[in-house]
Amino acid sequence: MLVNRRTVRIEWGDCDPAGIVWYPRYFGIFDASTQHLFEAAGFPKQEMIARFGLVGYPMVDTRARFLIPSKFGDDIIVESRVSQWRRSSFDIEHAVFKEDALAIQAFETRVMVRRTADGGITSCATPSEIVAAFSPVAA
Amino acid sequence: MLVNRRTVRIEWGDCDPAGIVWYPRYFGIFDASTQHLFEAAGFPKQEMIARFGLVGYPMVDTRARFLIPSKFGDDIIVESRVSQWRRSSFDIEHAVFKEDALAIQAFETRVMVRRTADGGITSCATPSEIVAAFSPVAA
Amino acid sequence: MLVNRRTVRIEWGDCDPAGIVWYPRYFGIFDASTQHLFEAAGFPKQEMIARFGLVGYPMVDTRARFLIPSKFGDDIIVESRVSQWRRSSFDIEHAVFKEDALAIQAFETRVMVRRTADGGITSCATPSEIVAAFSPVAA
Amino acid sequence: MLVNRRTVRIEWGDCDPAGIVWYPRYFGIFDASTQHLFEAAGFPKQEMIARFGLVGYPMVDTRARFLIPSKFGDDIIVESRVSQWRRSSFDIEHAVFKEDALAIQAFETRVMVRRTADGGITSCATPSEIVAAFSPVAA
Repeated sequence: MLVNRRTVRIEWGDCDPAGIVWYPRYFGIFDASTQHLFEAAGFPKQEMIARFGLVGYPMVDTRARFLIPSKFGDDIIVESRVSQWRRSSFDIEHAVFKEDALAIQAFETRVMVRRTADGGITSCATPSEIVAAFSPVAA
Repeated sequence: MLVNRRTVRIEWGDCDPAGIVWYPRYFGIFDASTQHLFEAAGFPKQEMIARFGLVGYPMVDTRARFLIPSKFGDDIIVESRVSQWRRSSFDIEHAVFKEDALAIQAFETRVMVRRTADGGITSCATPSEIVAAFSPVAA
Repeated sequence: MLVNRRTVRIEWGDCDPAGIVWYPRYFGIFDASTQHLFEAAGFPKQEMIARFGLVGYPMVDTRARFLIPSKFGDDIIVESRVSQWRRSSFDIEHAVFKEDALAIQAFETRVMVRRTADGGITSCATPSEIVAAFSPVAA
Repeated sequence: MLVNRRTVRIEWGDCDPAGIVWYPRYFGIFDASTQHLFEAAGFPKQEMIARFGLVGYPMVDTRARFLIPSKFGDDIIVESRVSQWRRSSFDIEHAVFKEDALAIQAFETRVMVRRTADGGITSCATPSEIVAAFSPVAA
């Protein structure tokens, strides 16, 4: 299963008066990390939207456990993977490391949505070729 | 048990290219809602910090379930309460309503922390008068 | 000329490790303040978009002078007005007060834009009834 | 004079319902770019603070002119330099490029500040070795 790993610099503006990351910022980092994961699978979000008529994959349920705080100037490593595909929804896990220590565990359930004829949005099956791109079969 | 209710206007900058609230913004709204809850109990954060030598109450674990999306111009109602006190950690629940419909459920576990002599931070017991302020005894 | 005045609470998450507002947050406050100004004139952004086929009024040029810092828990007052209308662009001024002291002066030049047939955006004249709503004639 | 150049990916969460970057986000990018510029000169912000007893270099006056919009998935290039040093204040310029086109020009005046004995902040001279690091003398 595809795992995407990226390094994120914690900036001054990510941190609060206690000198540590203001936790809503981490969800912004995770949202971008999910998009980098899809891009690593060959499906940048803007191309997914254009090619499959999607609107995006909004969040249904998310949880994060914060084990070690970070402060500005720190570099954190975010490892992201899909842990489960269902028809239109899917689960993502992010593990944040500071050097070798697990700093945050985060879980997401998202749902693939497309635009309806009346301008609303509705869930839709995740295109099979996207799913396949995350689980390359052995040669 | 004290419940604080406030109305939050969803602004243009809270929303993403799909036209709905970018979910990390909700965590910013919830963080402020927790502070408004403490303020409703008589303990604005800046006074808690000054009076008890605290640094804050950083997030340990948080989860949110998103049931109904919102878009800019919407007014949402956030109801916040403490669901459990432990020695130094405590649980908060936020329920977001759009008119009468439950739109989001969010859960937080936070821990009270103070500054240590060497400039680090450590957990500490929540001052008893703060706890008491949330649970007024019957006369 | 219509002036809109609103009070904004500075939240913990608006502030940086120096304990004062992280200045990019002010631009978010100003963007919302411009929308509250249009709403005060009778034109909430979502209605302007639906009724006149607009996309919005993106920023062309903005400047802010920061005279007095604010910290979390402070309430600031933002006074907003249109200082000049041109055909499709217009100027906004925001004055931020802490009690009676001028804390920030901000200037914006924005341009009214609509969607083109090919999905791009182009500038367009500000609808005259919007302009009129800001400058009520004497009876 | 030292120029720092970095590439910034525009993320989904940086963009608004019009599909383009919500302009306050650019100020966050510029604030980080100023810190990357100081780091390129050998002075990461956390080390400047620890070594010289500084609090930071808050914004006094900033302006940005937006020439070309960007959307999510775009990579922009930010070129940053100090354009003038005074005793305690200094000017920064950022130029944002999309491929070879100038997309944004931004200007900042900041002031170096340190903590006072009573816990407030006051301006102070920029340490001369910092200034020197931006303007290497010819051999």
